Amino acid sequence: MKPLRVAVAGLGTVGAGVITLLHDNAATVAARAGRPIAVTAVSARDRGRDRGIPLAGLRWYEDAAALALDPDVDVIVEAIGGTTGSAPALVRAALAAGKPVVTANKALLAEHGAELAALAAERGVTLAYEAAVAGGIPAIKAVREGLAANDLTRIVGILNGTCNYILTQMRARGIEFAEALAEAQRLGYAEADPAFDVDGIDAAHKLAILAALAFARPVDFAAVHIEGIRGISALDIRLAEELGYRIKLLGIAARTQDGIDTRMHPAMVPATHPIARVDGVFNAVMAEGDFVGRVVLEGRGAGAGPTASAVVADLIDIARGRVTPVWGVEAALLSAAPSVPIDARVGPYYLRLMVVDRPGVIADVTATLRDHAISLESMLQRGRSPGEAVPVVITTHDCEERAMRAAMARIAGMEAVLEPPALIRIEHL
Amino acid sequence: MKPLRVAVAGLGTVGAGVITLLHDNAATVAARAGRPIAVTAVSARDRGRDRGIPLAGLRWYEDAAALALDPDVDVIVEAIGGTTGSAPALVRAALAAGKPVVTANKALLAEHGAELAALAAERGVTLAYEAAVAGGIPAIKAVREGLAANDLTRIVGILNGTCNYILTQMRARGIEFAEALAEAQRLGYAEADPAFDVDGIDAAHKLAILAALAFARPVDFAAVHIEGIRGISALDIRLAEELGYRIKLLGIAARTQDGIDTRMHPAMVPATHPIARVDGVFNAVMAEGDFVGRVVLEGRGAGAGPTASAVVADLIDIARGRVTPVWGVEAALLSAAPSVPIDARVGPYYLRLMVVDRPGVIADVTATLRDHAISLESMLQRGRSPGEAVPVVITTHDCEERAMRAAMARIAGMEAVLEPPALIRIEHL
Repeated sequence: MKPLRVAVAGLGTVGAGVITLLHDNAATVAARAGRPIAVTAVSARDRGRDRGIPLAGLRWYEDAAALALDPDVDVIVEAIGGTTGSAPALVRAALAAGKPVVTANKALLAEHGAELAALAAERGVTLAYEAAVAGGIPAIKAVREGLAANDLTRIVGILNGTCNYILTQMRARGIEFAEALAEAQRLGYAEADPAFDVDGIDAAHKLAILAALAFARPVDFAAVHIEGIRGISALDIRLAEELGYRIKLLGIAARTQDGIDTRMHPAMVPATHPIARVDGVFNAVMAEGDFVGRVVLEGRGAGAGPTASAVVADLIDIARGRVTPVWGVEAALLSAAPSVPIDARVGPYYLRLMVVDRPGVIADVTATLRDHAISLESMLQRGRSPGEAVPVVITTHDCEERAMRAAMARIAGMEAVLEPPALIRIEHL
Repeated sequence: MKPLRVAVAGLGTVGAGVITLLHDNAATVAARAGRPIAVTAVSARDRGRDRGIPLAGLRWYEDAAALALDPDVDVIVEAIGGTTGSAPALVRAALAAGKPVVTANKALLAEHGAELAALAAERGVTLAYEAAVAGGIPAIKAVREGLAANDLTRIVGILNGTCNYILTQMRARGIEFAEALAEAQRLGYAEADPAFDVDGIDAAHKLAILAALAFARPVDFAAVHIEGIRGISALDIRLAEELGYRIKLLGIAARTQDGIDTRMHPAMVPATHPIARVDGVFNAVMAEGDFVGRVVLEGRGAGAGPTASAVVADLIDIARGRVTPVWGVEAALLSAAPSVPIDARVGPYYLRLMVVDRPGVIADVTATLRDHAISLESMLQRGRSPGEAVPVVITTHDCEERAMRAAMARIAGMEAVLEPPALIRIEHL
């Protein structure tokens, strides 16, 4: 049967992984796809570099966008990365030329996905992105097809392996963030500039994409509230443990009465929940549907192998003619549900203060919480050290974020409160 | 757009659940499917019974197979169950008439799936069965499409919620099998006649199906080695715990040098592994691929809601025209890999004996193991009670099942060994 002819743009980890997989597993892929999948053209900047992959006989383009016009290319794999320059230029050119695109570029999809999906719909062309979210876990397929019969209520994800590795190490060994980060960098689990990962941006890109397909609305990255893990201390991880929780960088996309709530922040989750058990560089996606209940998927969220597995799964779908709209429904049926601001979040909180151990401090703190209509679930002063700093840990019943923040601002300004309080949301999954 | 017209045969839990979902989530389903999915005909025995579902206006057939000939039916949902009588008659009639079939009938697929898949291939018709394995978990889609780029090495599953519930209760509360079973029956988690579940047959049906699509060969239920959980004691669960293991009824399908190994039996798995943490009525499927690594899916394995979620996901695929061969590849490409007998299993074992506490017994037991070339990893006599019965626990290094069984037969025959030894395979996942 006629092979599906693929052009791979970008020969970094992802592009090279895809070429390696298509080479190593050619027979399996052909059987699953119903026909061979053959790479016929590539694009990358430095032609001379040895990438350890078989490139002989492939057409080479300096300009990635030119791949879209090659008449012997049926599908484009965009593995360039980035939100400006040649990646978006190639994707637009390919969709405009009526050629399906497979991309692992979460940043591009999160920031320009609404426009690109509209272009794909207009041209009736597939824009596939299984590899953009949770690496090798078939999360896009599971949510968009496998659970398609459900009204989904919530998606919760551990979507960044670097952060999960750091938090896992901090807990397992009682070390601080800076030490865990340095080690992750030494091991290659974190970049030299870790901001994109540890500040939650990469994970938020993926969450925005999951929210779009879970709730069938155009991706809206700007609506995601984002906090990273730099502020998490070994002390809070230890105290969480004592309270029966684990701290995870959690992405949450939920349907509420007022619209779609999307947020990425450290959260305390019950230690017995499957999500709390996902450790190290693994990712997980939990979906809740009205008929299916809770489904949890776990696997490797990054790396050449898992990413190539996801990219080629998309190619196999294309080879078989299995087509799904970008956000799961036709453009005309996309929802216009508004986004809910973080201020409207309702739930319990963990609040940890360092206070001077002297009479009256606790009374002042609790009075402030009362004034904001926040009711306490527990209050614990750790140890006694008159006149010195001691940690005070408070957990609350459900309250509104805006009330909690207002109370926090007052508490942080108290003379007896010695450093900025730690505030971590508790999520009962 | 033209609705997809569905006939539902069988109005028990599954059939009624499907009709309820298609009614309650009609708008979501239509959006995801690209067109409405409408039930137009049903079949069940007792027309008079109130099933609490909307049946007005639907054509009613006494004879399920007649649904296949209704010109106003596009797709058949077979929710009758059973491997003889009207279920297989309907599936055959529908496929012969060129109508896609969606079934939740694992027994039918496991026992007659090879023939039915061949008929579906011959007619070019879809035979879909997401609901047959692991209920609401999109395991079929994940393995057959999501991980399609991989050479899969192994599938491991917790595939029967009744058994998992019983084992979870036995561990959590230290109770014996009989008590846990009686309670599961009271709560509706186990049938009055529990044999199908607790003897491992239901789970083995699902494993046979997973093995077929993981390794792209016609389903071969007869090749599955099956042991249930009746022989598991509270003592062995407690001892497993002390050794760092949990006992689960595990389905394993693995590619070995000699062919495909498929077996369903209680196994000890490391307590820290995600599979060990799947408790209660939940199911899980772990797949290992050469590029993706390990992926674990967890969710509800049974019940009206999860099963309907899976059935309707299949209907949505059909409505969208997304087609996949039954075992993932065209009939001509199916593998003829042989099945490996359980005798050839190589791995560690847990052996627990009740022996008379007197000098020389342990020496006799260990000499017998040595004579069968089985090397010990650990040996532990629990407590001392001269002249009385005490448990002796042995764990071995990797050895062959046939050697272990031969040694066991000799050991069981020793005068000082007081009851049939417990032998449980240890699986390092």
